[in-house]
Amino acid sequence: MSTEPHLSADRAAALPLPPMAWNAWGDPALAVSLSDDVSSLLRTLLEITPGETGEPGEPRVGGAPARAEDAVLVPSRLSGVHLKALSAIVGEEYVSVRDGDRLPRAGGKSTLDLLRRRSAEPQDAPDGVVVPGTEEEIAAVLELCAQQRIAVVPFGGGTSVVGGLDPVRGAFAAVLSLDLRRFDALLSLDEVSGEAVLGAGLTGPRAEELLAERGFELGHYPQSFRFATIGGFAATRSSGQDSAGFGRFDDMVRGLRVITPAGVLDLGRGPASAAGPDLRQLFLGSEGVLGIITAVRLRVHPVPAVKRYEAWTFPDFETGAAALRAAEQQGTGPTVLRLSDETETAVNLAMTAKIGAPQEVSGCLAVTVFEGAEETTTARHELTRAVLLAHGGTSLGEDPARGWEHGRFGAPYLRDALLDHGALCETLETATGWSNLARLKSAVTTALQGALQATGSTSLVMCHISHVYETGASLYFTVVAAQRGDAIEQWQAAKRAASDAIMANGGTITHHHAVGTDHRPWMEQEIGELGAAVLRAVKGAVDPVGILNPGKLIP
Amino acid sequence: MSTEPHLSADRAAALPLPPMAWNAWGDPALAVSLSDDVSSLLRTLLEITPGETGEPGEPRVGGAPARAEDAVLVPSRLSGVHLKALSAIVGEEYVSVRDGDRLPRAGGKSTLDLLRRRSAEPQDAPDGVVVPGTEEEIAAVLELCAQQRIAVVPFGGGTSVVGGLDPVRGAFAAVLSLDLRRFDALLSLDEVSGEAVLGAGLTGPRAEELLAERGFELGHYPQSFRFATIGGFAATRSSGQDSAGFGRFDDMVRGLRVITPAGVLDLGRGPASAAGPDLRQLFLGSEGVLGIITAVRLRVHPVPAVKRYEAWTFPDFETGAAALRAAEQQGTGPTVLRLSDETETAVNLAMTAKIGAPQEVSGCLAVTVFEGAEETTTARHELTRAVLLAHGGTSLGEDPARGWEHGRFGAPYLRDALLDHGALCETLETATGWSNLARLKSAVTTALQGALQATGSTSLVMCHISHVYETGASLYFTVVAAQRGDAIEQWQAAKRAASDAIMANGGTITHHHAVGTDHRPWMEQEIGELGAAVLRAVKGAVDPVGILNPGKLIP
Repeated sequence: MSTEPHLSADRAAALPLPPMAWNAWGDPALAVSLSDDVSSLLRTLLEITPGETGEPGEPRVGGAPARAEDAVLVPSRLSGVHLKALSAIVGEEYVSVRDGDRLPRAGGKSTLDLLRRRSAEPQDAPDGVVVPGTEEEIAAVLELCAQQRIAVVPFGGGTSVVGGLDPVRGAFAAVLSLDLRRFDALLSLDEVSGEAVLGAGLTGPRAEELLAERGFELGHYPQSFRFATIGGFAATRSSGQDSAGFGRFDDMVRGLRVITPAGVLDLGRGPASAAGPDLRQLFLGSEGVLGIITAVRLRVHPVPAVKRYEAWTFPDFETGAAALRAAEQQGTGPTVLRLSDETETAVNLAMTAKIGAPQEVSGCLAVTVFEGAEETTTARHELTRAVLLAHGGTSLGEDPARGWEHGRFGAPYLRDALLDHGALCETLETATGWSNLARLKSAVTTALQGALQATGSTSLVMCHISHVYETGASLYFTVVAAQRGDAIEQWQAAKRAASDAIMANGGTITHHHAVGTDHRPWMEQEIGELGAAVLRAVKGAVDPVGILNPGKLIP
Repeated sequence: MSTEPHLSADRAAALPLPPMAWNAWGDPALAVSLSDDVSSLLRTLLEITPGETGEPGEPRVGGAPARAEDAVLVPSRLSGVHLKALSAIVGEEYVSVRDGDRLPRAGGKSTLDLLRRRSAEPQDAPDGVVVPGTEEEIAAVLELCAQQRIAVVPFGGGTSVVGGLDPVRGAFAAVLSLDLRRFDALLSLDEVSGEAVLGAGLTGPRAEELLAERGFELGHYPQSFRFATIGGFAATRSSGQDSAGFGRFDDMVRGLRVITPAGVLDLGRGPASAAGPDLRQLFLGSEGVLGIITAVRLRVHPVPAVKRYEAWTFPDFETGAAALRAAEQQGTGPTVLRLSDETETAVNLAMTAKIGAPQEVSGCLAVTVFEGAEETTTARHELTRAVLLAHGGTSLGEDPARGWEHGRFGAPYLRDALLDHGALCETLETATGWSNLARLKSAVTTALQGALQATGSTSLVMCHISHVYETGASLYFTVVAAQRGDAIEQWQAAKRAASDAIMANGGTITHHHAVGTDHRPWMEQEIGELGAAVLRAVKGAVDPVGILNPGKLIP
């Protein structure tokens, strides 16, 4: 047995692969082609002529490798000494500098990430990957990295869409990806209190599987659900499609374990507390910058006995938004409550299978789902019906709501096909008070269209209310336009315009995608100069050398 | 007109008085006598012979002054130079070193505070009082105090029961009470979003009055409601009697303005955000240690159209707690949901007017109240009824629930009468998961009784579930025993034993009373050594000289 780890240019991976494809969203087996409807839409509306083959995953951008084995990576900057030291901590089999391990952890899945992966240029990537199995190993890795001045990027499901996983080295010589996949246990379940302690590396489906064996559900279903992890949900303040009913992920968190270079934090006593500032709320949304989350204590509920669906149409977005507001403010309690605007409804974006097909629903489509015990579910459904009817809604019955649910994790696959065929496609989101919703929606739409027009592209800007609160709602925008010139620069310009519009019009820079590198330039506007100084002070206390995820979040 | 402020030993107050009596809870006009029932209870159960007069406010402890004018204060340590500088900032009429202004701001209303006020010894008190009118004035006062090394204690309603207002000087020469009463406006109301911006100095009733004029309600009703302020609710993470329905105060907060020695924070964009750590959660519960809260943006709701009451009895606490758990976990939605244990029920403590009277309700009394629109309120009431019936509850109809509501702010007045007549009386509270509730309740009860027994007192320890959550509940203890020896030391010993039991048995050191000086020794157990270091780092960023409320909260 070799005791001397050696640097290897071996392309093949030696570690288990992350759950998502290296150069596209999700599972390659689920990649989609552009339907005739979508191709037609692109041609007529956006002046894009989709590539001829139309094969899934077939790249249009010249020369880029379709296979991981063919991708060119910048060489690893880790030395044999580093590798040996890391191996001594986690075991040789859990550390790698192979290209095959580095490449799938080179970034997240934003359109910028995917465009970079589609480039024929050498790809930047972490200089190595470590897969620790215990908190003690994490602490030792952090200690080593602080000594050796190596940056550390925690890695969960790899689904970041804000550059949260970019291999930024900051002031350091090298950057290490720390994969949490081995923190994959249901550590405990308190059936009476309805609390589960889940390992940070558990994916959404695996967490639900383990809970379901005991009759419980977490109920957190963001679009990244199939791949993202419990630790990632916590580190990014994720919000799911069922959050109207079960709450945002941060609402569900009762406790957190966090390993930092300065020690361990075990936060959260009791269901609620007045014992000073809520420090959990510093580490929720900390995006790997303040520590490595290893386990999360979460509120869970019994698997719902019944599930009811009802779709609705409203004559226009304003009427629909007022109806959603009334339902939420009156506490009628749907699990899912969403509303597409006229454009999104027309494109059928809510139902992946039918995207681009001639519209079946006019006006604005809303979806409601109710889950729980028979009695409470029926009561909540009836109350919601009454409010939506009173506010101008027309019921479309169950089918369109079931159709939405069926396709709800599918949209990102279409983005890959669009990118491959010359379209620019991306989403962004914000939130504001109900009274400011129309103004913010209009400002962001105008900003996006104007910025893309300036690059020579007509754009299709669609929007839906993805999450509702008593005092306001989120706005989730989907943009499709023709790629013109450097698509990366093109999207960066559009994103800059949209972000400036969000800040100038009272929105938050991100409602559920987190900050990463992409939203960082707007963070000082979001929290103020002193707010940024407070974050830096916290960072100094837990990570004095600054190795944790440099270049992210903190302005 | 004199431009030279002069130190004055004048006893009379020159500033508007705080809302509460200097030496007792609340409004002197509402002071109560001990009823025959209570006197009998004290005699037979606790071996206390109440004083003969039984007059409200008549002190039993030897020699203590009943009138503020007769109290002896330690002299003010502020100089004429300080006073002149403060006057230059806020105006001469808004600064005072008179005993009459210092004494009513000498502390809060814990039993320890009230025992200290009842002492004939010289009273410690802040060295001066300043009543700024603008944020700019607050900033200038903080700048001056940092330069001159004067500690600053923010003052709202003066209702702290954890020593949060103690005039601790720390490393400084003097301490200034900064009274926020002039921040008393409803700054804005967004009726569509259901958000109000309220000045930090508004008392509970005044805030509700201003909102009611516009048809809205905040719905935060802690026992301190009549005197405590919006800023105080935020700074202490207050929880109210209607929090089951309307949420804890921290749940209601959408935004905060905070003036610190390092600058101003304006936190909170949108109804929810994923823009990194939630910094509002650092200043909620910050107890004046991290900044002066001047305004709070809060979720408000239309004044409920209907209100329904129903009281219940359960054969025992365990059965009742299981029923409350089921109601909360099934989301049946009462506004108020509480349960007294057997002892508290027997003493009729839930209904102030009848405390100590022969019991009318056996077993354990529960109270439910429902508020909202006609339709949703009826639905929630019916769902709750069904769950409570299924879990062994027997309805007692409306009256006992109305009786509870009628007396719900009254209990602290009884404490004053008890203290005056030789009884020790205090409350404390914690929270834990449902599965741990019985164990924690038993451990705290045993600890309290044991510690008081060691001082020679039989004690009556009563408990109720004051707040419910899906994953757990709070436990609110009321203790009555005979004063033996030094009552202050006696209670400190009991409190220490209870706090140790809370920490050893999985509770939080405080569910809604905050930390102050009294819970500070347990904070490192609550948040860990590194958690404490994080708080100190934040403190360093916003208050580098450390003038803000020294000796509180941060261990």
